[in-house]
Amino acid sequence: MHELNALFRPETVAVIGASRTPGKIGAIVVSNLVSAGFKGKIFPVNPAGGEIQGIPAVTDICDLPGPLDLAVVCVPPKAVLPSLEGLASVPVRAVIIITAGFREVGREGYFLEEQVVKLCREKNIILLGPNCLGLINTENGLNASFAAGQPPHGGIGFFSQSGALCVAILDWALGEGLGFSKFISLGNKAMLDESDMLEYLRQDAGTRVILGYMEGVEDGQAFMRQALFAARVKPVIMMKSGSTSAGARAASSHTGAMAGSDQAYQAAFHQSGVIRVADVETLFNLAMAFSSQPLPKGPNLAIVTNSGGPGILAADACERSRLMMAALRGQTVEQLSAFLPSFASLYNPIDIIGDADAERYEKTLEIVLQDSQVHAVMVLLTPTASAQVEDTARAVVRCAQKSGKPVFGCFMGEKTVASGREILKKGSIPCYAFPEAAIASIDAMYAYSLWREKSPSAEVCWLRDKYKAAKIFEQARGRDMHEVVEFEAQGVLAAYGLPIPETTLARTSDDAVAAAQKIGYPVVLKIASPQISHKSDVGGVAVNLATEEAVRRAFLNITSRAQRVKDAYVMGCLVQAMAPKGSKEVIVGFSRDSQFGPLILFGLGGIYVEILKDVSFRLAPLTLGDAHEMIREIRSFPLLRGVRGEPPVDFRAIEDIIMTMSQLALDFPDIYEADFNPVLVGEHGALIADCRFSLCRTDKC
Amino acid sequence: MHELNALFRPETVAVIGASRTPGKIGAIVVSNLVSAGFKGKIFPVNPAGGEIQGIPAVTDICDLPGPLDLAVVCVPPKAVLPSLEGLASVPVRAVIIITAGFREVGREGYFLEEQVVKLCREKNIILLGPNCLGLINTENGLNASFAAGQPPHGGIGFFSQSGALCVAILDWALGEGLGFSKFISLGNKAMLDESDMLEYLRQDAGTRVILGYMEGVEDGQAFMRQALFAARVKPVIMMKSGSTSAGARAASSHTGAMAGSDQAYQAAFHQSGVIRVADVETLFNLAMAFSSQPLPKGPNLAIVTNSGGPGILAADACERSRLMMAALRGQTVEQLSAFLPSFASLYNPIDIIGDADAERYEKTLEIVLQDSQVHAVMVLLTPTASAQVEDTARAVVRCAQKSGKPVFGCFMGEKTVASGREILKKGSIPCYAFPEAAIASIDAMYAYSLWREKSPSAEVCWLRDKYKAAKIFEQARGRDMHEVVEFEAQGVLAAYGLPIPETTLARTSDDAVAAAQKIGYPVVLKIASPQISHKSDVGGVAVNLATEEAVRRAFLNITSRAQRVKDAYVMGCLVQAMAPKGSKEVIVGFSRDSQFGPLILFGLGGIYVEILKDVSFRLAPLTLGDAHEMIREIRSFPLLRGVRGEPPVDFRAIEDIIMTMSQLALDFPDIYEADFNPVLVGEHGALIADCRFSLCRTDKC
Repeated sequence: MHELNALFRPETVAVIGASRTPGKIGAIVVSNLVSAGFKGKIFPVNPAGGEIQGIPAVTDICDLPGPLDLAVVCVPPKAVLPSLEGLASVPVRAVIIITAGFREVGREGYFLEEQVVKLCREKNIILLGPNCLGLINTENGLNASFAAGQPPHGGIGFFSQSGALCVAILDWALGEGLGFSKFISLGNKAMLDESDMLEYLRQDAGTRVILGYMEGVEDGQAFMRQALFAARVKPVIMMKSGSTSAGARAASSHTGAMAGSDQAYQAAFHQSGVIRVADVETLFNLAMAFSSQPLPKGPNLAIVTNSGGPGILAADACERSRLMMAALRGQTVEQLSAFLPSFASLYNPIDIIGDADAERYEKTLEIVLQDSQVHAVMVLLTPTASAQVEDTARAVVRCAQKSGKPVFGCFMGEKTVASGREILKKGSIPCYAFPEAAIASIDAMYAYSLWREKSPSAEVCWLRDKYKAAKIFEQARGRDMHEVVEFEAQGVLAAYGLPIPETTLARTSDDAVAAAQKIGYPVVLKIASPQISHKSDVGGVAVNLATEEAVRRAFLNITSRAQRVKDAYVMGCLVQAMAPKGSKEVIVGFSRDSQFGPLILFGLGGIYVEILKDVSFRLAPLTLGDAHEMIREIRSFPLLRGVRGEPPVDFRAIEDIIMTMSQLALDFPDIYEADFNPVLVGEHGALIADCRFSLCRTDKC
Repeated sequence: MHELNALFRPETVAVIGASRTPGKIGAIVVSNLVSAGFKGKIFPVNPAGGEIQGIPAVTDICDLPGPLDLAVVCVPPKAVLPSLEGLASVPVRAVIIITAGFREVGREGYFLEEQVVKLCREKNIILLGPNCLGLINTENGLNASFAAGQPPHGGIGFFSQSGALCVAILDWALGEGLGFSKFISLGNKAMLDESDMLEYLRQDAGTRVILGYMEGVEDGQAFMRQALFAARVKPVIMMKSGSTSAGARAASSHTGAMAGSDQAYQAAFHQSGVIRVADVETLFNLAMAFSSQPLPKGPNLAIVTNSGGPGILAADACERSRLMMAALRGQTVEQLSAFLPSFASLYNPIDIIGDADAERYEKTLEIVLQDSQVHAVMVLLTPTASAQVEDTARAVVRCAQKSGKPVFGCFMGEKTVASGREILKKGSIPCYAFPEAAIASIDAMYAYSLWREKSPSAEVCWLRDKYKAAKIFEQARGRDMHEVVEFEAQGVLAAYGLPIPETTLARTSDDAVAAAQKIGYPVVLKIASPQISHKSDVGGVAVNLATEEAVRRAFLNITSRAQRVKDAYVMGCLVQAMAPKGSKEVIVGFSRDSQFGPLILFGLGGIYVEILKDVSFRLAPLTLGDAHEMIREIRSFPLLRGVRGEPPVDFRAIEDIIMTMSQLALDFPDIYEADFNPVLVGEHGALIADCRFSLCRTDKC
């Protein structure tokens, strides 16, 4: 039995701070418990005694019969801790603290909350809240909340960090008649958070769709894991608000400068199969679609309409989505032509014209739904003079129930069509006022079905000499440095089997000439100094050096310029072979997100990476599929694939580097940021021409 | 008096095909006319005579008393032409043909429509339709339509190509209580189209907002002109559906390949100040906002909320828009702190906490609306237990009326807040269910106010030798060529004062060497052949030629490669100076849109222009402001502005080229497409390194 059952399926519930005064939270909670039809035992606790909602009140917590499953606490903040101590001795297995005035109100409340959590952990009490609305389980009639109303029973499991969103969504659900299985207000998330809800709702048979609103998570990796587990079983639809500026945190690498918190969330949702929505309206629309219709088995949509204009709108929206306009089979077109009027359009969108009655809709739908080329159907209706709004709605419901394919309604307008929409909703057909919203919902369902079909990627095992790399980082640390100098960084790359150009550290111009002769002209010279990270900014790079004289002059120029950089310790210059001609520059990097860990970046490289910001992100650990997608997601991917007869670059080589970057980030938690920039990738193979590792300062990691 | 007044403000209306049979169009039209309270004279025409809706019917058109203002025709298609002939002899000034079965049903209907138009033009009859719903003027109670209902009177003038959209929007307006001034179904637009409606509604005092739905226009330039005139006076909100693939038309230039019909519409809307919406829902939302609230005088928005979560949602949406979160003045904060509870947040979003009653809302709003830093206010309400939904709505209406600043409501939820929303709407406060939709509406209003403030750009007069350029094009035409060879094209550029590199046509390698010596090494050699447009594809370009030998070898290589191109007439090579170092490559071009005329393109140049598609579009004639915007609109604009201490490129030089391209396109309607690619632009000045003109084939222009 799941330990959260004490919370969701209690047999005994005490209300601490129960009240007789109408409108008080302590009164609403008891009244909600009673009126929602909770079958277990309710114990209102109030020092004044007497009866509350017809139930005799217990005057002291110590008088409660133990052990209790659940206590709902709505006493003032100062009384919470004493109440909990009393409850611990009863004992109680779970508490919901509705009371506000904790972390959200500042320092004092923060410490109070800390004490509450400490006590609950010590006494093994499960804690929801504080500062929350409570929770509702429609299956057993448990309404342990001060919400104004009980949502209808249904398949949506909902949790929200914001109590106000809970209130608004409940009110909306009551208006729309949408059904919920569980309804949870998380409040301050002192103990239970989104990850716990995902874990519970995944296993909850009554929940077919998980819906959530969040502002942020503490443990991003735990969240991702639970989200992924849940999304493999049922759709998880989340809204995340509170966008923070990427610039808010100091970053010394390119990757760090571009990797904002929202990129990490975006990657987390994407990689765990969560359907992210940008606004509350879409949250509602998708909840309606996913909770009432089966997933489409393919992309092909048929649109049945009684008017041309809205049909075009829908087809436009379809074209912009992942869906396709279904090409009807010849047999279907023949069957339709047998009874539709001659002006009707037999091709998709199937326009059965403005004088269509319910019967024409029904016949058309029956035929279209039987077409094996059709995976989903949208029924469009505008309230023409001939439209039979309610009968048509009933026909749609009948056809959908018979077919087993997903069917969606879009009854445009408001006054005339309202009753038709009601009938559709009661018949579990999601109905939208606008074709675009309907298409977006079907598209999201199709995308989720695609994701579900993807088999989890195989693990990849990489050859690496972690010990050798660790030693190099230790040395850098020993010198109290936060930047690993390039020459050493290349040692790390070598240890991880990454492709690096032949490089020699030259401490004098004679060294440089000797190295150039050994490598072969032309060569590149780069400044070697741990304090100088953006080498070209200070004139620290010279390319295409073809003669001994050029090498010597470049060495002196570069080092003398570097001497002028404040506090820069100049070790000399690195001498490298020139990159092969025609190769493209890309960047691979990572930065460490405080919630989600290593956020890997891929993008078009060179000095313009920060300008065009044409990059993609994923969270480590990566699958090969992730690396594959990252490369193909950037806008300039066609450049890598080759234009005008150019051969494509070596994608396998880039994938190797991305995967190894992910591994490095996981192997060494004290690397704060890393950039391989540029990575030169040609038709065969790639070369990491420059790389940087920043180590964590003690105040950062 | 406006000639369309016969249509909108008739004193006499005949209904041809009036009927007594309920449900028939001819019956609905008479009934609508009567029940909407039309004060003029109504003449139902029906061969059977008798009374229709209590009015004696005229049995023959010829018996109608002339002259008539308006006739509504709803007889079968075949009877339309004879009816019109009769009406012409009455005579009648305007007709609305509701009857369907014309152009929309194929060839036969097309010819019938042609005859109808011809007759109307000859007899000077204004024609709305055919195949339309009719029109409604709520000001004089004229409902000359078969719509199911009369919209409330208000400030929105609406026209639509799609009759179904009319029906849906009418039904929605009835549900939402939104008021219309004029309501016009355009149908097949045989004579009157969007441009005429824009022209009329602009001058119509009762119309405060123009709303339109269109699928396409015939005369794009006329549309743009009328849209611009109208948008300078009142907001014009348009939805355009029916996206067509850019690839649908054959194009030989880069510009042509990227310039789809939707780019032309997008540019037309942008340049004429039309607010384009992507979906019907936004059309509704904006109509509600623009028709009921004044434009904000600045970007600063204050949000007053009774709950934190939705406040965050709104602030998020605000951050993504052009709006700013207002920074309240110290005095405002002081006044608020004097009465708000201690947990309230006095900074924007102003969170007056979940137990806020109507009075707290009202006091807060009064203070916030007086803050000179605040340009608009959004009032958020979630239905908490303490929320006084209706009283709060009334308070919002009072505060808004006193202040004169725009105020918007967002009452979240559905069941509990419905009555509050009603009160707001009746009080002319737009109310949304979701914060994002509210913010998007305010943002659109602010953007429109910015556009209105922009003074129209001054005309620019360009020095040009049009005669010389015309002669060059004539010569090319004379040789029956559609491509103007580069050497000649450069003559055109010179005639228009455009910057071209010093270029010599070398017919032999000796010529080439002589030219190179004159120009100065290093030089570029390019193939000169009218049949070869993508020169680098066939190895027709050699750069950085520094010696006589290199020039000679390149000449032979290029010309011999070109000989292998089928049907290519090789004139020799062009010899040009090398481009200055460090300059950036951009492209300027145009292609001719069949509706809107020359569509000018600007973008990042070089061989990647087609891959990254980082381009901007405007329709000719351009203002300097357009050219300015085009440069700044592309994603890679920061590259032009200079990165890492680079100086910016010469924007004036690019603007000159863009403006001149616009002039060239207007001066020579038989240039089909043109590319200047690349244009090399440095810190000072620009150079058009390569250019192409395609002339119209007789079957294209």
